[in-house]
Amino acid sequence: MGMRVGIDIGGTKTHAVAVDAAGDVLAESTRPTGRGHEQVLVSAELVVADLAGIIGVAPETFESIGVGIPGTVDVHTGYVSHAVNLGIEGLDLAVELGTRIAVPIYLDNDVNAAVLGAYRVLGHDLASLAYLNVGTGLAAGLVLNGKIHRGFGGFAGEIGHIPVEPNGLLCACGQIGCLETIASGIAIARRWPTDDSQPIRALFRAAEAGEPLAQAVRDRLADGIVDAVRILVLTTDVDAVVIGGGVMTAGRELWELLDQRFTALAASSPFLESVDLRGRVRPVPPGPSVAAIGAALLGETHPALTLPGSAHAGTAFA
Amino acid sequence: MGMRVGIDIGGTKTHAVAVDAAGDVLAESTRPTGRGHEQVLVSAELVVADLAGIIGVAPETFESIGVGIPGTVDVHTGYVSHAVNLGIEGLDLAVELGTRIAVPIYLDNDVNAAVLGAYRVLGHDLASLAYLNVGTGLAAGLVLNGKIHRGFGGFAGEIGHIPVEPNGLLCACGQIGCLETIASGIAIARRWPTDDSQPIRALFRAAEAGEPLAQAVRDRLADGIVDAVRILVLTTDVDAVVIGGGVMTAGRELWELLDQRFTALAASSPFLESVDLRGRVRPVPPGPSVAAIGAALLGETHPALTLPGSAHAGTAFA
Repeated sequence: MGMRVGIDIGGTKTHAVAVDAAGDVLAESTRPTGRGHEQVLVSAELVVADLAGIIGVAPETFESIGVGIPGTVDVHTGYVSHAVNLGIEGLDLAVELGTRIAVPIYLDNDVNAAVLGAYRVLGHDLASLAYLNVGTGLAAGLVLNGKIHRGFGGFAGEIGHIPVEPNGLLCACGQIGCLETIASGIAIARRWPTDDSQPIRALFRAAEAGEPLAQAVRDRLADGIVDAVRILVLTTDVDAVVIGGGVMTAGRELWELLDQRFTALAASSPFLESVDLRGRVRPVPPGPSVAAIGAALLGETHPALTLPGSAHAGTAFA
Repeated sequence: MGMRVGIDIGGTKTHAVAVDAAGDVLAESTRPTGRGHEQVLVSAELVVADLAGIIGVAPETFESIGVGIPGTVDVHTGYVSHAVNLGIEGLDLAVELGTRIAVPIYLDNDVNAAVLGAYRVLGHDLASLAYLNVGTGLAAGLVLNGKIHRGFGGFAGEIGHIPVEPNGLLCACGQIGCLETIASGIAIARRWPTDDSQPIRALFRAAEAGEPLAQAVRDRLADGIVDAVRILVLTTDVDAVVIGGGVMTAGRELWELLDQRFTALAASSPFLESVDLRGRVRPVPPGPSVAAIGAALLGETHPALTLPGSAHAGTAFA
């Protein structure tokens, strides 16, 4: 077993790691993510070339390249759609990347890649883990009994579309008051629009300065994250919930709000005290992108991919 | 592999089945459930004697006896607590029953037994299944990728304590507006008290006759069941959700209300239309109690139980 590459294609940056057979990180690279089909592919090619250069091998030496990407991902065909932030309507990403770099390509959505990576990094004393992504949207990835859990239709962890606010905002999904309308980048943009280039930090600054609307939006954000954790734990009873995503860059102030809420819930409910929501949540582990690490592991854990008409059908997209 | 017995100890009736090595039902028995420690044990002994008599063997011939029971069950020690409807505060049920019948005893809560049995009966084309029990309380059992999923602390499926009504009723758990305060026998007793011996049917009759409060309580009940199904599917993405429990004895009228709601949701949300909640729900399969069948299977699927101090430690409670 040789080296594998994992690429985490985010809205602004593309992180990549090369890992050895034990899953340890050998090299890292980060580049800005280009927008649109061609530029997204170029960003991916560049980080792979970076890693190959650092290690001193040809890119074709890598055993596999795994990609985690936001949007709707067909893990069987390697097709990505609705990756709106990347300017991708629909792209045969695995095929296209496999054409440029002759290595088997594996693909999954960013949240599934993140939970796989977080599970690897946090160690093997956990049977199950959720990765709650509070990013542009809200969704979770699940590792249950040591394996990624996608579910029947790939909807596992789509808790952003569970309504929790009966008279809330209309969600893009067509429902009213979904978690995603309260706790996500989209929610903040709708409830507290700003021209600031860092809207989350601006929101917390304004709330801190006493602006009532900012305080209300910030507090509801924290409520929604707590709701999401409670839904995950009372449904799947995962050992731990890692909370990540762009909104969590708010940092310590947001964690303090969460902490207050978990403490108050445990004080009001002996049942929730025994569930211990507070003891289960944790931040994203420091170090290289867990989504990139998880993407690298896709080559280990995914079923062999077949591509109709591919010369390499039966193995992967290369 | 010989015959196994499964016992479903309910609030009013105790159902039991004997199954062969293939899991097919050989014999059935139903008795009223006695109240309190001694009478619950006597009810269990009686149904086992019934099955032995029907088949024409001694009770000790059975390979194992599995018991599904409401309340908090420690599957490792066989201890039951808080089975309030049965008049049980705390009972070493596995030890006590194993003393009376020298057969290995396995124990789980009724909802886990029911999902195991439903999974067996509905067949093996399902990877995952939830059993949503709308009984005195509201909770679900989960089979994920063919195996019972209990979670880290035994809280998997405890969705009855997810709040969905911000200004709702105080739940026994200490939170406000939990699903269980809307969709359960407890909820109906609080919201629409009656002396009728069949409160669910009385509620539906009164609603049908035009009583506004009965209609409101009935409609919220249906809303709550739909909420529960949506939470289960958007979190775990199970292939199917079986809905059972005493409240579902309301029958066709309740299923029609659920059907209307699933249809309306799919019409308002292309996302939920693609998830197809309506296509995933189904009633409890007809025939012998699925909880009794599932209880019989506990002897197959549970880890070997050990009992401190037992002469048979390492195998089970016998």
